[in-house]
Amino acid sequence: MAEPLPRSILQLISELARLPTIGTKTAQRLAFFLVRSPESQAISLGRAVASLHEGIITCEQCRNFADENPCAICSDSSREADALCVVEEPLDLVAIESSGGFNGHYHVLHGAISPLDGIGPDDLTINLLIDRVKRENVLEVIVATNATLEGDATAMEIRQRLADQNIRVSRLARGLATGGDLEYVDAATITLALEGRREL
Amino acid sequence: MAEPLPRSILQLISELARLPTIGTKTAQRLAFFLVRSPESQAISLGRAVASLHEGIITCEQCRNFADENPCAICSDSSREADALCVVEEPLDLVAIESSGGFNGHYHVLHGAISPLDGIGPDDLTINLLIDRVKRENVLEVIVATNATLEGDATAMEIRQRLADQNIRVSRLARGLATGGDLEYVDAATITLALEGRREL
Repeated sequence: MAEPLPRSILQLISELARLPTIGTKTAQRLAFFLVRSPESQAISLGRAVASLHEGIITCEQCRNFADENPCAICSDSSREADALCVVEEPLDLVAIESSGGFNGHYHVLHGAISPLDGIGPDDLTINLLIDRVKRENVLEVIVATNATLEGDATAMEIRQRLADQNIRVSRLARGLATGGDLEYVDAATITLALEGRREL
Repeated sequence: MAEPLPRSILQLISELARLPTIGTKTAQRLAFFLVRSPESQAISLGRAVASLHEGIITCEQCRNFADENPCAICSDSSREADALCVVEEPLDLVAIESSGGFNGHYHVLHGAISPLDGIGPDDLTINLLIDRVKRENVLEVIVATNATLEGDATAMEIRQRLADQNIRVSRLARGLATGGDLEYVDAATITLALEGRREL
């Protein structure tokens, strides 16, 4: 049977459908949106995708993806170099940066310990983190891994590995999310919020 | 504040977020999926997007997007040229083709009449359809527009415009979808299924 669509559309649909959370139907809809958009939009998006890897380097200090080495955050002398915030992924760093609540340096692990997925401590940048803490004048390591089993395991590993260093190792507080309705909060979060309660 | 991500990633996130159904969060996740994939995948997807418009032509007979003119379906002599199935979009044609239930020719309207969106009959390929019916030896026009208000309005317009031609103008049956549970079917569909009931 002859294919009822041009090769270029079929090709794009099959490429798009390889992306996570994009099924065939969504891929079809996206492809036809681009067909009906000005050619300039498709070219501009296509170039952004094709040239994505060009020019991305890894900052040798914090291991975040960056335009230059060291990255803009690591080379910013107005930031406090003695506080190190450890995150799983670059997008976690972006979230903390946009909160405006932290003005120190970062360390990106590029994942979390997950035995089920075969990811151990050596698959992350934990060794580089430990070296860095020993080498630099770090006073506090804030472990900002996710509030998941994997994030917990990673935080534990980092705490153990830094136990012999004379520094503070902390972790983000667990408790109610701002705007959260107590009625809908899960039991584990309520337990942790009670444990972490603070004087008014 | 310095941007905490490379320009190429930020650029891709903003391009992806312009696509329908893709919000900033999804755009971020897709961008990082591509960052962590082999560069070859990003290049291959990027080229498919950028070259999408190249080589897409419109078949002058059925108005479907195609690789050549006339398209593979219009030039397939094994198909019945006296039955014309009218669809709103190329993807509707794809759906009918994959059902295997039709072996005639098509006509793609590229939309449906929708006064609220400012789309009238002249914004579609209805005039070309009427010319085609008058010129070619068509015995039946099957209107396969969507089962929506816009699809209904478009079907009505086509029926009126073809009223003076000595041909059959039909529309896809309305009724229960295969596998549908009567309990969950809406009232309008049940009414139409009753009206269209057939002898057993």
